[in-house]
Amino acid sequence: MEIPEDCLVLVTFAVLMFGLAFVPFSAAEPRPLSLMPMPVSVQIKPGHLVIDSSFTVGISGHSDVRLQRAVDVFLDSLRRQTGMPPLDMKVTDAAQAKLVVHSERANKDVQELGEDESYSLEISPAGAKLDAATPLGIMRGLQTFLQLVQITSNGFAASAIVIQDKPRFPWRGLMIDVCRHFIPLDVLKRNLDGMAAVKLNVFHWHLSDNQGFRVESKKFPKLQEMGSDGLFYTQDEVRDLIAYARDRGIRVVPEFDMPGHSTAWFVGYPELASGPGPYQIERKWGIFDPAMDPTQERTYKFLDAFIREMAKLFPDQYFHIGGDEVNGKEWDANPNIQAFMRAHGLKNNQDLQAYFNTRVQKLVSKHGKTMVGWDEILRPDLPKDIVVQSWRGQDSLAAAAKQGYRGLLSFGYYIDLMWPASRHYAVEPISGEATNLSPEEKQRVLGGEACMWSEYASPENIDSRIWPRTAAIAERLWSPQEVTDVNSMYRRLEYVSRWLDWLGLTHNSSYGPMLRRIAGSDDISALRTLTDVVEPVRDYTREEIAVVEATSLSPLNRVVDAARPESAIARHVADLVDALIAGQADPGAKTEVKELLTRWRDNQTKLQPLEAQSFLVNEISPLSQDLSAIAAAGLQALDYLGRGERAPEAWATQQFALLEQAQKPKAQLLLMVAPSLQKLVEASSGMKAPAPQK
Amino acid sequence: MEIPEDCLVLVTFAVLMFGLAFVPFSAAEPRPLSLMPMPVSVQIKPGHLVIDSSFTVGISGHSDVRLQRAVDVFLDSLRRQTGMPPLDMKVTDAAQAKLVVHSERANKDVQELGEDESYSLEISPAGAKLDAATPLGIMRGLQTFLQLVQITSNGFAASAIVIQDKPRFPWRGLMIDVCRHFIPLDVLKRNLDGMAAVKLNVFHWHLSDNQGFRVESKKFPKLQEMGSDGLFYTQDEVRDLIAYARDRGIRVVPEFDMPGHSTAWFVGYPELASGPGPYQIERKWGIFDPAMDPTQERTYKFLDAFIREMAKLFPDQYFHIGGDEVNGKEWDANPNIQAFMRAHGLKNNQDLQAYFNTRVQKLVSKHGKTMVGWDEILRPDLPKDIVVQSWRGQDSLAAAAKQGYRGLLSFGYYIDLMWPASRHYAVEPISGEATNLSPEEKQRVLGGEACMWSEYASPENIDSRIWPRTAAIAERLWSPQEVTDVNSMYRRLEYVSRWLDWLGLTHNSSYGPMLRRIAGSDDISALRTLTDVVEPVRDYTREEIAVVEATSLSPLNRVVDAARPESAIARHVADLVDALIAGQADPGAKTEVKELLTRWRDNQTKLQPLEAQSFLVNEISPLSQDLSAIAAAGLQALDYLGRGERAPEAWATQQFALLEQAQKPKAQLLLMVAPSLQKLVEASSGMKAPAPQK
Repeated sequence: MEIPEDCLVLVTFAVLMFGLAFVPFSAAEPRPLSLMPMPVSVQIKPGHLVIDSSFTVGISGHSDVRLQRAVDVFLDSLRRQTGMPPLDMKVTDAAQAKLVVHSERANKDVQELGEDESYSLEISPAGAKLDAATPLGIMRGLQTFLQLVQITSNGFAASAIVIQDKPRFPWRGLMIDVCRHFIPLDVLKRNLDGMAAVKLNVFHWHLSDNQGFRVESKKFPKLQEMGSDGLFYTQDEVRDLIAYARDRGIRVVPEFDMPGHSTAWFVGYPELASGPGPYQIERKWGIFDPAMDPTQERTYKFLDAFIREMAKLFPDQYFHIGGDEVNGKEWDANPNIQAFMRAHGLKNNQDLQAYFNTRVQKLVSKHGKTMVGWDEILRPDLPKDIVVQSWRGQDSLAAAAKQGYRGLLSFGYYIDLMWPASRHYAVEPISGEATNLSPEEKQRVLGGEACMWSEYASPENIDSRIWPRTAAIAERLWSPQEVTDVNSMYRRLEYVSRWLDWLGLTHNSSYGPMLRRIAGSDDISALRTLTDVVEPVRDYTREEIAVVEATSLSPLNRVVDAARPESAIARHVADLVDALIAGQADPGAKTEVKELLTRWRDNQTKLQPLEAQSFLVNEISPLSQDLSAIAAAGLQALDYLGRGERAPEAWATQQFALLEQAQKPKAQLLLMVAPSLQKLVEASSGMKAPAPQK
Repeated sequence: MEIPEDCLVLVTFAVLMFGLAFVPFSAAEPRPLSLMPMPVSVQIKPGHLVIDSSFTVGISGHSDVRLQRAVDVFLDSLRRQTGMPPLDMKVTDAAQAKLVVHSERANKDVQELGEDESYSLEISPAGAKLDAATPLGIMRGLQTFLQLVQITSNGFAASAIVIQDKPRFPWRGLMIDVCRHFIPLDVLKRNLDGMAAVKLNVFHWHLSDNQGFRVESKKFPKLQEMGSDGLFYTQDEVRDLIAYARDRGIRVVPEFDMPGHSTAWFVGYPELASGPGPYQIERKWGIFDPAMDPTQERTYKFLDAFIREMAKLFPDQYFHIGGDEVNGKEWDANPNIQAFMRAHGLKNNQDLQAYFNTRVQKLVSKHGKTMVGWDEILRPDLPKDIVVQSWRGQDSLAAAAKQGYRGLLSFGYYIDLMWPASRHYAVEPISGEATNLSPEEKQRVLGGEACMWSEYASPENIDSRIWPRTAAIAERLWSPQEVTDVNSMYRRLEYVSRWLDWLGLTHNSSYGPMLRRIAGSDDISALRTLTDVVEPVRDYTREEIAVVEATSLSPLNRVVDAARPESAIARHVADLVDALIAGQADPGAKTEVKELLTRWRDNQTKLQPLEAQSFLVNEISPLSQDLSAIAAAGLQALDYLGRGERAPEAWATQQFALLEQAQKPKAQLLLMVAPSLQKLVEASSGMKAPAPQK
C-alpha cells in the first residue's frame, strides 16, 4: 500500500499515536507501534517480517569494527527481547541476510558534535534494509528496528514499514551526578544502554563536587585517595566506559566543577582553596563556602597539569568546568583575595569568577578542548566557541545565542525534581525569547540535557528517577517540533518503559524488592496499593520539609525512595474522573473508578499489620488514613452523582477539609489521587473547594 | 531468659518451625525466625540488637585478607538487605564493634575437604559475638546473622539468640552444567552467592560435554576454539571465579567428562576419538556414540598434558573425570579397539572403560589430584582414595563405602528434573543399605551435590531451576538428620527465597519479564494466573513428549521455560482442600478456595485476547480451557458439599473424565491443581476417580 507523501504526517499520527492503522490487523498482524522518539516520517505497509532463530544480519557498503560491534549489540538485544539462545541469529553475507545494513563511510575516530545520525529503514515481509551515511545512523536505525519487533500469533515479527529519520538537535544528553551518591560503573553502563535505546548521544559525567571526587588522577592521587571515600573510577574504568559509550554512539563529556562545588578537591589539596582549611568531604546537600583561590598562580599551575591529564583521558572535544553556584564567602573572608581584587580592578565576586573562568578557558583551550559551563560562566569576554548549559531557561539561552554563544537547555529537564513526564515533554528549547532568534542564531541552540542530580538517588533507585521520563525528553530533542501529543507520548512511554527492562534497567524491577524490604514481608499488596498512588514531593521540597536533615549517610530505603516519580494510576484515574464528570466516560469507567475507590478505602485496614511490624511502613500511616478517608468521600460523591442528587453542603465542606489535609505532603510524599477525588466532591455538591491555605 | 539444655530441641522446633516463641513478641520484636539451613542448636533470648547505619564489625583474634574480605562481603549484603549507603556500617576496632568476629587460626591456603566450619553466634541487645575456629566458620556464621536481620517497628534488628552450629556432611555441593547451555560468569557468581547463603561449600563445574568444551586450554587451544562456539571461560576468568568462590568458602571442583560425553573435544582433536570423524559440536540432547580411544597411547599423552595444565589452573585437591554413560558403539565399530581388547583380555566395554579409568587415575594422581567420577567408574582395581558420585542411589553409595570408597549422593538431587522441594528434602544420604554401614563406613559418605543439568536452562531461567529448591537440599546436607519437618521447610524456604533476591539471584525477578515477553503485553494477570498453577513436566518427560526435538538452538522462551518447577499456589490449595475435606479448615479457607476457583474458572475468557496475539500464549490454550473446566467442577463440588447434598453419579463421572484429561501434560506442562479438584469432586460424590489410563 502506497500512501501519498502529503498524507504522511496524518498516517503517522493516526497509526502511532492513536493506535489506528490504515491496514486492518489480522490476528497475525503485530499490534500498533510504539516508537519513541517518533521518527520524522513513517509509512505503514501491509504484512510483517518474521523474526525467528534463522534471522540474520549482513553488512554491505562500508564496514568497520564499531559497526560490527553495533550489529553484535543489536543481535544481543534482539535475542534478549525474543528469548533466543546465543547460537541463533547470525551475522552473514549481505546477499543472504534478512536485514541488510548499509552505510557509506566511517565516522570520526572520536565522535563529534553534529555527525550525521540520519537513517532510513525499510521493512517488508521478505527482508529489511537499513541505510545510513555512517555507522552512527545505523545505530539509531537498529534501535528503531528493535522497537518494531513484537510477538504475533505466528512468532516474533517486525511490521512492514518505511521510515525516514534524523534528529532535530545534535546534542541530546543525560547528565548523571556521581558525586552526591556514587554510582557504580555497571549502573552507568545500563543507563548508557537506555540512552542509546532512545537515541540520546551525550553522557555528561558530573565527576566532582563537594561530596566526592570520583575519578582517578595519577598526577594528583590525593584527589581520589582523600576525596572519594574510596568510591571512584579508575582510569581503566573510565576508558572502558568511554569505549562502551562509543559503541553505542554516545559521546562522554566530563565535568569537573570549579571554582565552587569543589570541597572534595581540598581534602587532599587544601592549598587550592580560598579558606584556611583543613577540609572534609561534605556530607550534606546545598551550596557551600569552599571555593578555589582564583588569585594564586599555583591554582592555575595545578589546573594546567590536571586538565592536561583529563584532556587525554577523555577524548571528547568538549570539557565541562561547571562554574555554578559560588557563594563567594571564602573569597570575602580572605584578605589576600580582597587585595588581589582591588589591585586588578575586580569589582565583585562575579568579576573574580569571570577572571578565573577566562584563565581556565585558556587552559582548556591549550589542551585542545572546547569549554562548557553552566549559565554563570557567560561573560562577553569569553571566546565564542564555548558552550553554555542553561539551568535558567530558554530566554537565557536565547540571550547567549544572540551574543554568538552556543547553548544547551537543561532548565525544565532536571529529572531529580520529580516532575511528571508531560511537564518535561512540554519544555521546548526554541521557545520564549528563542522563537525570535534568526535561523543562524537558532542553530546555536545545540539541544539539551536531562540532569540527574543524586542527592536522593542510589544505585538501587536511580534508574527509576531517570526512566522512563527521560525518554520523553529524548523525544523532545530528537523528533520534529510538532510531535507534542501528550496522550500519545504517555501511551508510547509505557511501552518503551517495559522495553527498557530488557536492557537491564531496574526502574521497574527494583520497585517490588524495595517494597518488600520496607514491608519486611512478601505480601506487599496493601503497601503497593498505597505507594502506587503517591509521589515524592517535587522540586526542592524534600529538603525544605525534612524532619531530620538528609546527608550522604542517610539510608535511601524509605517509601519516598521507592515511590515512582509519577503515579500512572493517579494519571489514569484523573482521566476517568474527568470523563465521568463531563459525561463522556465509556460504560466501564464508573465501575472501574468504584472498584479503585473501594480498594483504597479498605486499604488502611489491610496495611495496619505492616505498620505495626515496620518502622518504614509506619511512617506512611497518615497517608494511608488520608487515602482511606478521601476514597470514602469519593465513593459517597459517586453515589450522589449516580442518584442525580445534590450532595449536602455540610457534607461537602467536611470533605473539602479532609481533601485539603490529604493534599499536604506527609513523609515527603504527595497523595496524587486527591485532586481527582476533590473534583468528584465538587461535581456532586456543585460547590468549589476553597483554595488551600499556604 | 535461660532455657535448660534439655529443652533446646523443643525450643528450636517451636520457635523456628511453627513460628511460636516462648518470649511473647511486643510490637517492637522481630517476627519468627526463618533460618535455613537450620542450625544444630538455637536458644531464643529476649530483645534484639538494632542494626542501623552506625552498625560496626570488629575482627579480634586471627585476621587475614580472606577474613577481611568475608566481612566486607557481609557488610555489602547487610547494606543491600537494609538499604544503607556504602558509607555506613564500617569495620572498626573490636573493642567498639557491635559485632565482634573472632577466629583462632587461618584456613588452609587451598580450601580442603573437612576443614572446620563450625561457629557459635551470640546476639544480645548490646552487641553480638561470632566465634569460630577459622574464617570458614566465621563465613557460615555471618550468613546466619544475615538471616536473622528483620525489619521491626524500631528499625532493622537481629533477634537476641545463642546459636551453636556445624555441618553434618563436609561435602555439600552444587553442580552446574555449563555445556548444554553456556552460563556466563556473572550468572555463576550470583549462584555462588546463593550457595554461600545456604552454606553449600563445593561448586562442581561441569566444563566439558558433547555440546561444548567451555574452558580455555593454552596447551590445546583447538578445544575451545573449535569446541565451544566461542562460548568458553578464559583462564583468567576461571581464576577469577575460583577466587570469588574461595572468598565465600566454596571449593571449585572441575569436571572434564571422559571417555564419553566428549564430542566437543573431537571437533578440534579428532585423533582422540574412537571413530573416523570428522566431528561437529553436538546440538541435540542424549547419549551419543563418540568416545575417546582408550587403546591409543596418544590419548594418554594428550590427557597427561591436559590434566597437567588443568591441575594447575584448578587448585582444588579433587578432579572430576566424569566417566558416565559410554554407549560403546564407537568401540564396537573400531577393529583396532576390538583387537586391543582381545589382546589385553578385556571382555567387554566395561572392562575397557575400567582400563581407561585406571590409566587416567594414574595421570590425575601424578599431577597431585584425587580423582572423582560418576558411579560407573567404580571398579575394585581403583585405589581407595578416589571419590564416587552416585546418581544411582544410597545403596550404590553404601556398596562403595563398604569397599572402602568415599562417595557423594546426587541421586535424588537432580534439580533439573522439576521435582518439588519436599521430594529432594526427603532424600537422606544415610538411608537404605547405608543405614547398616559401620560408623567408619558412614564417614565415607562425604555428603552430596545438587545437580543442575542444563538442557532446558538458560542464563535467564537457570536461577529459577536452582533456587529456592536447592536450599532444601543444602539443609539436608548441613542440618541434623532429625530436621525433617516439611511444613517448616516450606515456610522457611519461602522466606529464604525472597532473601536470596538481595544477592541478585533472578529466580523470582525473571518470572514477570519472561511472562511479559510471552504475552507481548504489560498486562499479564491472566497469563500469570494460569502459569502460577502449572509446572514443567518432571523427569525426562519433556524429551519424551516433545513434538519438535529440542536442541541447543531452540529458544527457551516458552511458558514451560518460565513456569516455576514448583507451584506454591497448587501446594497451598492442596493443603486447604485437604483441611476442608477433613472438616478441619479454618473459617476463611472455604472462601479462599471459592475465590481461587472462581478466578480460575473465569481466567480462560481473560486470557483469550493474549492467545490471539501471541503464539507462545496460544500454545497453552488447552491448559487454559482445562483450568476453567475443572475449576467450574470444583465450584460445583463445593456447592454440593456446602448444601450437604451428594453430587449425582453421572455428574461426577463426567467431571472425572474432565479431570483425567486435565492431568495429561500439554505444552510440556502439568496443571498442578487438578489433583486437589479431583479430591473435591470425590468428596462431593462419595465416589473414587477411576485410575488414569496409561
